Amino acid sequence: MTEFVKGDLLYTGKAKEMYVTNDPEVLWVEYLDQATALNGKRKVAIDQKGLLNNRISSLIFQDLAQHGIENHFIDQLSDHVQLVRRVSMIPLETVVRNAASGSFERKFAVPHLTEFATPVMEFFYKSDQLDDPFINDSQIEALGVATAATLTEMRRQALLVNQRLQTIFGEMNVQLVDFKIEFGMTAAGQVLLADEISPDSCRLVDLTTHESLDKDVFRKNLGDLTTVYQEVLRRLASVEGGQQ
Amino acid sequence: MTEFVKGDLLYTGKAKEMYVTNDPEVLWVEYLDQATALNGKRKVAIDQKGLLNNRISSLIFQDLAQHGIENHFIDQLSDHVQLVRRVSMIPLETVVRNAASGSFERKFAVPHLTEFATPVMEFFYKSDQLDDPFINDSQIEALGVATAATLTEMRRQALLVNQRLQTIFGEMNVQLVDFKIEFGMTAAGQVLLADEISPDSCRLVDLTTHESLDKDVFRKNLGDLTTVYQEVLRRLASVEGGQQ
Repeated sequence: MTEFVKGDLLYTGKAKEMYVTNDPEVLWVEYLDQATALNGKRKVAIDQKGLLNNRISSLIFQDLAQHGIENHFIDQLSDHVQLVRRVSMIPLETVVRNAASGSFERKFAVPHLTEFATPVMEFFYKSDQLDDPFINDSQIEALGVATAATLTEMRRQALLVNQRLQTIFGEMNVQLVDFKIEFGMTAAGQVLLADEISPDSCRLVDLTTHESLDKDVFRKNLGDLTTVYQEVLRRLASVEGGQQ
Repeated sequence: MTEFVKGDLLYTGKAKEMYVTNDPEVLWVEYLDQATALNGKRKVAIDQKGLLNNRISSLIFQDLAQHGIENHFIDQLSDHVQLVRRVSMIPLETVVRNAASGSFERKFAVPHLTEFATPVMEFFYKSDQLDDPFINDSQIEALGVATAATLTEMRRQALLVNQRLQTIFGEMNVQLVDFKIEFGMTAAGQVLLADEISPDSCRLVDLTTHESLDKDVFRKNLGDLTTVYQEVLRRLASVEGGQQ
């Protein structure tokens, strides 16, 4: 494999930094040991969080690729570093819900964890200035954010991701309540799963204890995030049969 | 024609009262001389408003029926009274936007009256308790509010209504910026345009003076609502060739 060299900082996210490399099609991602809430207004250093999310996200992306769901993951280089394909990010968060929680529960006043007969899918327009508003297909097209064909492809892939994640987490004795993913567009016009999949972006509940195994532990001050993420990685690594 | 007798009050809306009649398939609608804003928190008596909206809505519903868009309108009985077909209301507001204004403009920070290449369509879930939240198809289906097939039919009819309304208002030298309609379901399962179409439910701008010709006059205290609605009726009656 070519040796990749870390270049200039491209983008700083809430829990990751992205750098260019000597290969224009490859980015260098550093998972940070920090957590944010309230759209970044609250930021705290969390021991090992970057390492844990990098490992969890790497295992999940590898699993998805093995199950036919292509994504931007190339390789995990070190504890905190991942190499990914460079894509043009589509500025939408795609949320898939299997049961009611969070903003859905508040907005529609339905009981917590009401299960849906078919998954609910929502798009949010990524814009710090606009506070990431909930957006529908018609608005997305009018604003030129994505075409109807791109949205159809995002929905198709999101449902496949949901199916596979439900299987993985089911084997971990965890309910996948909902999750958020993001997609990018390759130079060839392919819609490609990108960003990360981790307890930062999934709402996970232990099927036996009903305890949260995700970032809600941080958002709601329910306990020690590192311990919880370690437990998620322990179960995931056991299911994936790989090393932690 | 059978003589219809007004029966018990069925429902009080923000600007209308609905009564049953001696015919179980027919409702008696009284358009009230009042306006509300801020989801009913502000309510004011407005001279002639009920009469004007009843006349405007009657003329528009008749025009739409003549152009193949069936709706609940049966007859205008008197200044303030309309007879309509009784349907089971679908608890959704369907908003069609030809240009950016109101909540769209605020939410996405786009310039006022930016025109859309194709109309934007939005659904809002009618619930005073929940404050009529913006809702997408997937959420509508999950909550059992309407099926995908019903939404497809609502969209189809809404676009036809938009086309015809744009023609009518164009002939009145008025820009149809956006409007809200509601649909009901007949006993036979037909999605039928219902509620009202008036300056209460349309955002209208004079193409020459760029002045508002709708309820924004009331919402924003821009002038005398009665005078404005009278002007809309004058132009509409002229286009429709009917009596005022």
